[in-house]
Amino acid sequence: MKAGELGEFGLIELIAGIVGKPAGRALVLGIGDDASVWHTDKATQIGTTDTLVQDVHFTFDTATWRELGWKALAINISDIAAMGGEPLYALVSLGLHPDTDVEDVVEFYRGLLEIAGEFDVEICGGNISSAAVAVINVSVIGQSPDTVLMRSAALPGDRIAVTGYLGQAAAGFEMFKSGLAFDTETTAFLRAAQLHPYPRVAEGRLLAQHGVKAAIDLSDGLLNDLSHICKASGVGARVNIPSLPVHPMVKAAFGVDSVGLAVSGGEDYELLFTATSEVIDSIKGLMPTPITVTGEIVSGKPGQVTLYDEQGKPVEYDKYGWEHFKTSG
Amino acid sequence: MKAGELGEFGLIELIAGIVGKPAGRALVLGIGDDASVWHTDKATQIGTTDTLVQDVHFTFDTATWRELGWKALAINISDIAAMGGEPLYALVSLGLHPDTDVEDVVEFYRGLLEIAGEFDVEICGGNISSAAVAVINVSVIGQSPDTVLMRSAALPGDRIAVTGYLGQAAAGFEMFKSGLAFDTETTAFLRAAQLHPYPRVAEGRLLAQHGVKAAIDLSDGLLNDLSHICKASGVGARVNIPSLPVHPMVKAAFGVDSVGLAVSGGEDYELLFTATSEVIDSIKGLMPTPITVTGEIVSGKPGQVTLYDEQGKPVEYDKYGWEHFKTSG
Repeated sequence: MKAGELGEFGLIELIAGIVGKPAGRALVLGIGDDASVWHTDKATQIGTTDTLVQDVHFTFDTATWRELGWKALAINISDIAAMGGEPLYALVSLGLHPDTDVEDVVEFYRGLLEIAGEFDVEICGGNISSAAVAVINVSVIGQSPDTVLMRSAALPGDRIAVTGYLGQAAAGFEMFKSGLAFDTETTAFLRAAQLHPYPRVAEGRLLAQHGVKAAIDLSDGLLNDLSHICKASGVGARVNIPSLPVHPMVKAAFGVDSVGLAVSGGEDYELLFTATSEVIDSIKGLMPTPITVTGEIVSGKPGQVTLYDEQGKPVEYDKYGWEHFKTSG
Repeated sequence: MKAGELGEFGLIELIAGIVGKPAGRALVLGIGDDASVWHTDKATQIGTTDTLVQDVHFTFDTATWRELGWKALAINISDIAAMGGEPLYALVSLGLHPDTDVEDVVEFYRGLLEIAGEFDVEICGGNISSAAVAVINVSVIGQSPDTVLMRSAALPGDRIAVTGYLGQAAAGFEMFKSGLAFDTETTAFLRAAQLHPYPRVAEGRLLAQHGVKAAIDLSDGLLNDLSHICKASGVGARVNIPSLPVHPMVKAAFGVDSVGLAVSGGEDYELLFTATSEVIDSIKGLMPTPITVTGEIVSGKPGQVTLYDEQGKPVEYDKYGWEHFKTSG
């Protein structure tokens, strides 16, 4: 059956059935009223929203609806993680071509519910409308009992560290785009890196609890996102290229190009944060994901990031990150 | 300058400049970090999200960017009003064709800020991406110190009442679609009804404060929305056609067709609520907008709405509301 035949109200009923009743906790009203309702205590709340547009952020040539469900919520949970918060509620707005199979909508919600279950997020509402291409908007509300991590809190002398590995999501994008063939294990790894990012919520919580002040999630690529932090904090940064944590599989698959992917590839959804060496040393053993120090914050032109090679020499770079929207200049 | 030339980061900086710093109150971090941050006390919170898609919900043949800014936030504030709450924060997600004029984006934000100022809502975050057509998603977080108004709380014997007038937004849509020409005053009224809806926040608050339990905002049309309430409450409804509050200008412009517009035309964003006669009498004098009793809730087939004419006879209707998405059946 097509979504357009079932209609908006039929789809909402179907989705309400899949999502189920509020699981308890503080959610009072889930899908099916004019808005969602929940109780909150005195808290610091965190809100974020992000959109995936067909043929801009994904294509059905490579992504399944289930993967899109996971990713659409993952990228928002990642924003909450970058503030050091825990995600709580998600509102999902879906623009669908009327010819979309209803079973695909169900698969999309299975993907959403998979990650919602993983991170204890309640899908509490949303809406459905017609659109020429698929447009997925998710908003997430979270909270933090601690000071939130801000882009504007980096200080000269801070070390720059990242969780996990860099460049694998861009490597997956490259594999899809250029139709590259790898062994099964590498293919699965790169596909998951691109379509199944795992937001660093536990890591963000630990950073906030242990005195880290500045963080961002790596959605636009190391250079862009570090530059965002530096601009907001009025500082510069030095990055030591040999120290960048490139995954062995990406190194094996992309050789020398893997450095470019790690420097400017987007969508890894790892956390980048800055703190003193002492703070970083104190949290290293606590983090579920390995962390790597890749450079330091310096005083200097706000937003300027300089890369250094093995010999400690500054490196020219012409690809400055990964900005979807820009068409020229 | 085109949006695609300025780029995502340039646009976000521009928008942050237009929106300005948090005005105080409880907002800690507005546009420019990974997410927005605000403080909240113990509260009942209300969250909603809605999307406007170019050539589905609007066309630039008739709507200006400024009107779209107003309307995109208005329809979400209306959902908060329908719960009896007050809106607080808005997240705005914008999908733009790269050829969009930057000045149009500015106009869009002027429209957003106009209604945000009117209802004391803070635009606290969002995102921008590329899209083949304009896609506007807004999420609003609000709260209520009272019991929220629910679709599921209508009881047999309740009177059905609406705020303001019915059918004028659909009349405006009809005027645009069919290129109808009216006098200046009528044209302006119908244009505003379609593109500049005024959410009934004060009215919703009063309903919640004075013991009303069931309400919905009229986005899908009287029949659809009343049917939503009836389905959720497990009841039926009788509507008395001659009592429907059709605006004199709509009557004058559309004659007998005005009744159809009032019965099944969407997007008026008035509130429909149900309560005992005593409750309705007690609030009549308090409401900033006139309210009209148009029927009553009855026990019967859940969701069934029956219309009655001047002679008290049931009326057949073939147009059952206004469902954008449905393509057949």
